[in-house]
Amino acid sequence: MPELRKDPVVGRWVIIATERARRPSDFAAEPVRPRGSVCAFCEGQEAQTPPEVLAGRRPNTEPNGPGWTYRVVPNKFPALRIEGDLDPAGEGLFDKMTGVGAHEVVIETPDHGASLATLPVDAVADVLLAFRERVLDLKKDPRFAYVLVFKNHGEAAGASLEHTHSQLIATPIIPIMVSEELAGSAQYYALKERCVWCDLLRQERRDGRRLILESQGFVTVAPFAPRFPFETWILPVRHRAAFEDSSEEELRGLAGVLGDFLHRMNRLLGDPPFNFMLHTAPFREVQLESFHWHLEIIPKLTRVAGFEWGSGFFINPVPPEGAAEALKATAGRS
Amino acid sequence: MPELRKDPVVGRWVIIATERARRPSDFAAEPVRPRGSVCAFCEGQEAQTPPEVLAGRRPNTEPNGPGWTYRVVPNKFPALRIEGDLDPAGEGLFDKMTGVGAHEVVIETPDHGASLATLPVDAVADVLLAFRERVLDLKKDPRFAYVLVFKNHGEAAGASLEHTHSQLIATPIIPIMVSEELAGSAQYYALKERCVWCDLLRQERRDGRRLILESQGFVTVAPFAPRFPFETWILPVRHRAAFEDSSEEELRGLAGVLGDFLHRMNRLLGDPPFNFMLHTAPFREVQLESFHWHLEIIPKLTRVAGFEWGSGFFINPVPPEGAAEALKATAGRS
Repeated sequence: MPELRKDPVVGRWVIIATERARRPSDFAAEPVRPRGSVCAFCEGQEAQTPPEVLAGRRPNTEPNGPGWTYRVVPNKFPALRIEGDLDPAGEGLFDKMTGVGAHEVVIETPDHGASLATLPVDAVADVLLAFRERVLDLKKDPRFAYVLVFKNHGEAAGASLEHTHSQLIATPIIPIMVSEELAGSAQYYALKERCVWCDLLRQERRDGRRLILESQGFVTVAPFAPRFPFETWILPVRHRAAFEDSSEEELRGLAGVLGDFLHRMNRLLGDPPFNFMLHTAPFREVQLESFHWHLEIIPKLTRVAGFEWGSGFFINPVPPEGAAEALKATAGRS
Repeated sequence: MPELRKDPVVGRWVIIATERARRPSDFAAEPVRPRGSVCAFCEGQEAQTPPEVLAGRRPNTEPNGPGWTYRVVPNKFPALRIEGDLDPAGEGLFDKMTGVGAHEVVIETPDHGASLATLPVDAVADVLLAFRERVLDLKKDPRFAYVLVFKNHGEAAGASLEHTHSQLIATPIIPIMVSEELAGSAQYYALKERCVWCDLLRQERRDGRRLILESQGFVTVAPFAPRFPFETWILPVRHRAAFEDSSEEELRGLAGVLGDFLHRMNRLLGDPPFNFMLHTAPFREVQLESFHWHLEIIPKLTRVAGFEWGSGFFINPVPPEGAAEALKATAGRS
């Protein structure tokens, strides 16, 4: 029988559709393997991007020239614009404001053929440290309420360039998905005086059926009510609301954990397109005991269709217990 | 400058990304045109589907044989199962219940090459009347709280069969997207003693910039804060909470309006894949003055990526005023 499951934080129900159950090998996602050779994100092509706001550079190299290990640049086609004021306005029933925000691209490596799963742990750690540095910097801008760090990997997951990169978008409003998590977490905290994510971690570590990996102070887990097949969350074991409060040591640990997970996912599912999204506390949130930052990873294996868009229910043909078991049994990076 | 716009009912913000503005001809969606010839939904193949629960039949034809104009059959691979009890249960932090529900397919025509845009108005009306009849029947089952009527057209929009069809899924829980609309509508009603959708219709008819068509008692409009390019809503002008309370005459009017819109959309965007979803009052909702049923149509032209999945913001490169203007200028069905 199919099962209806509810996410304990946001209350979203999903359908685990066992009648449509599929094994990892049944997903025919186009493998993501870079085919081109030189693009605007490659070394030597720095003039093709806006000037860098941050970079990992070898000694004696100039900004916006070769000699870097990662670069952060403004998005050439930003979803939101950095200049201007919010200028909120009404129009009868409707509300709008100027699309002010920041939209940056983190070019994770000069190597066109590499990916976060194949980069050395130190290089992945540098990318995570760059996220932290950019978040801390964007936080200073009083116009912004939140910054979403995310990654689109592969065309089917929305990437328009195949050279591995991630993105940051700072928004003047707390995104609704983060608001819902904050509200659910606060409600639980009001009831129990405990962080729902800490409780969730305790339960998953004890139960074990959805646990993929526990290492370096991080838990990699298949959520109880996943929207997508093989959806995976990585959370710090220690309670922490804001990603940017992580220490360098912690982020170096996370780099190993993330690389290991992506390696398993690629082996099991054949280099699928995927997204990841970082959920962290908003910039000016005082109530932090209730929230716990985490990284959500979703391989792009199924199509979202009318039922999902109309209902908000997601139909997931892979029970998370099966996904966790398969990912656990797959060799990680040695 | 890009613009942030808020949906007046659910409070969802979208980004109208003018920097990424695109014209209708810039969307390279694969046109949806049936290529196969005979499938399980064709006349003469009735044995390949579960037995019909409803059909439009010529006199003296037998159920589950040829001679039909439309057929409603249970889905062979249902997302939810019709048998059993809900059996709600907890598991520590988590909640679940049995995946009980109904999942039906409306085969809209025996003609493998037809679509809702090319069918005669009478045939489209029969499909809408079949929706109404099935909703009224499923409403009698005390286990169900809601039924979502929807359509996936084309593989990119999630259709696994190209023969034109729509679907109904009855769920034991009110879907979260409908709950959010109900809550937003109720909040507005509590404040103003008016239906927010009626107010929205009044404003859009007076303003005109997002109005695509007004005909037969229905308004076809590009919403102020659309998630997707060329997203379109069709609403009855007269206040009505539940779709299934529509008269036959009203649904015949809707058939003409829907066919006309799809014809324009296909002309303008080259037979794109699309979804539609019907939002109506839940089965056992008493407060009906605040809600107004409507049909949401979304052509599948862009990819949903990490930013959308992580934030709930949608980036839409086509302002609805431009979409409405282009659709209005395109010839409808004569």
